[in-house]
Amino acid sequence: MSPTDTVRVPEAGLKNFVERSLTTVGVDAEPARIVGEVLVAADRRGIESHGVARLRWFYVDRIRNGRIAARPAYEVVRETPTSLLLDAGNGLGHPASHLAMTRAIEKARGRGIAFAAVRNSNHYGIAGYYAMMALEHDMIGICSTDSAHFAVPTFGRTPMQGTNPFAYAIPAGNEPAFVLDFATTTVTYGKLEVYERKGLKLKPGWAVDNEGNPADDPAVRHGGGSLLPLGGFGTDGGGHKGYGLGALAEILTGVLAGGWFGTALTVAESLTSPSGITSHFFGAIRIDAMRDIADFKRDMDRELRTFKDSAPVPGQGRVYVAGEIEHENEIAFRRDGIPLIAPVIADLDQLAEDLGIEPVPRLS
Amino acid sequence: MSPTDTVRVPEAGLKNFVERSLTTVGVDAEPARIVGEVLVAADRRGIESHGVARLRWFYVDRIRNGRIAARPAYEVVRETPTSLLLDAGNGLGHPASHLAMTRAIEKARGRGIAFAAVRNSNHYGIAGYYAMMALEHDMIGICSTDSAHFAVPTFGRTPMQGTNPFAYAIPAGNEPAFVLDFATTTVTYGKLEVYERKGLKLKPGWAVDNEGNPADDPAVRHGGGSLLPLGGFGTDGGGHKGYGLGALAEILTGVLAGGWFGTALTVAESLTSPSGITSHFFGAIRIDAMRDIADFKRDMDRELRTFKDSAPVPGQGRVYVAGEIEHENEIAFRRDGIPLIAPVIADLDQLAEDLGIEPVPRLS
Repeated sequence: MSPTDTVRVPEAGLKNFVERSLTTVGVDAEPARIVGEVLVAADRRGIESHGVARLRWFYVDRIRNGRIAARPAYEVVRETPTSLLLDAGNGLGHPASHLAMTRAIEKARGRGIAFAAVRNSNHYGIAGYYAMMALEHDMIGICSTDSAHFAVPTFGRTPMQGTNPFAYAIPAGNEPAFVLDFATTTVTYGKLEVYERKGLKLKPGWAVDNEGNPADDPAVRHGGGSLLPLGGFGTDGGGHKGYGLGALAEILTGVLAGGWFGTALTVAESLTSPSGITSHFFGAIRIDAMRDIADFKRDMDRELRTFKDSAPVPGQGRVYVAGEIEHENEIAFRRDGIPLIAPVIADLDQLAEDLGIEPVPRLS
Repeated sequence: MSPTDTVRVPEAGLKNFVERSLTTVGVDAEPARIVGEVLVAADRRGIESHGVARLRWFYVDRIRNGRIAARPAYEVVRETPTSLLLDAGNGLGHPASHLAMTRAIEKARGRGIAFAAVRNSNHYGIAGYYAMMALEHDMIGICSTDSAHFAVPTFGRTPMQGTNPFAYAIPAGNEPAFVLDFATTTVTYGKLEVYERKGLKLKPGWAVDNEGNPADDPAVRHGGGSLLPLGGFGTDGGGHKGYGLGALAEILTGVLAGGWFGTALTVAESLTSPSGITSHFFGAIRIDAMRDIADFKRDMDRELRTFKDSAPVPGQGRVYVAGEIEHENEIAFRRDGIPLIAPVIADLDQLAEDLGIEPVPRLS
């Protein structure tokens, strides 16, 4: 198989594999099930960077080497009828985040709007998953997280923030929901790896060298290079806005949650790097606090259709709205199976062998 | 005087001039005072595009020609202990927004978090003003607005959104507050005017021609050209993220408030363009719902200092944080007077003559 060949696997079987992998290393059944839901949701939406490709080295291996607690003790640090601060006890990020967002939604059902934060946590997968939990409750969902640093601030040369995503999920009627889930860096670190492998030059606004100057050679990542914030180098393209959004994410997570922030997050990402340093933010807003939900959904359909029906640039098929391509992936991958590229399926097969469990079932 | 020569005026005298201009055309004293506060706050922070330069043609002239109601009837459309939807009755945007944010802060004091929306409103000045109202209450302030359309969506050729800003204000201790207030387009429309006047080429990622293709000639604005979202043309620089943020702003304002949205906002901005088409969003969050405020402010100081103390790119003095340059402008302009460029002071003098009121007093 070439590295870009894919194998199709069934959604349920893939989730089950994640669950079995994690219970084998000591995670309880319910949190393991949640991690499976979140990781496979990423692959199902076509966000393969944040899915099962990370199962081994982000999660299973770190539980096995004792960096992440398999059975963490959660602590409610502070709670009000509209807020919750949860300490995740250095456990997996997904179950703690699922709990925090669930509680935010419950509180918003009672009070109209609520928010939650989680500290002493770890990577939680795609931010969009938690924001989207609000959709079936006719609420707007909001989510953000910080991470280890690998992006420079505007005119800086030291990495001071991670990809620090924001996600917003807003329900519609007949149209798929509006789901905006974006890193506040121009691209993610994985893009540099891909471009290096392909021997391509980086595009403007993606990365800088170790002095903070714009770089087009993907190899800068080996020599102290960093990512740039959305908007690129300096201020001409609005890089200060992406930098500001990235800083906002770290403030709303690490600082607001009383977790790690600043230079404490300037660590190299590795199997033995510090864990429990990640913090998350969640929000839920009842739409009917403002408008009857049927009216809102009708207008959302109109708004989204207006974008989609607007005239495209010559050579482009049409205009898309946020979350639409991921929604189309979900439909196709649920029907045809989830495509995993050869290196990922090989990694999962090796993991199955190491753990002594059945491998991921194949459709093709 | 050359167009870039400046005259220094006293802050109080400038506010008073705005107030007198508006009361002369029929606005009540208190709302007129609020407009003065908001417009002069923009000039004081160095955001001259959104300050008194707009007094005549955005506000006074539109009241005089009957497009904006001088004495609007507000209506509370829906209200809960954590939310408020206000119809501004096609009045000036600033007083209605000031009221909505004041009520959101009051509700957040009681319930921890609250939000508000305003519809049937008009231009409200800088989004950051309303977000910053939360600071003295030890809250996080959030604000957004929609506007007439002059930016294309990613791969689109028809303008589908305005500059649609987001503002977040977060208090610190000894450091100035973190104030992120940014248009979701790469640049504002005024930048194209300035570059055309100076005979300069536009930078990549700023604008497109009437077919939606990247343009570097500022004259495209006369031939159906449009602005690009933050991140620029296409998806390489993350333009879909800026487009998504702009769409998010219109959804959280126009759609959530039951106001105008979509093609209803695709109007040319002129003295006689439709009014009352603008909607706004406001949020307030009590920090002590999560952490004791003293601990939070101490950590905010640390976080902001870490950014400021980080190493700059060669040739750059240092790294700034959001709102810091505006804060420095406030200190300098309060001390030395607010600088107004020659065309602006001439416009205000003409307005004074037209209205038969005393002109803006000068310091220099």
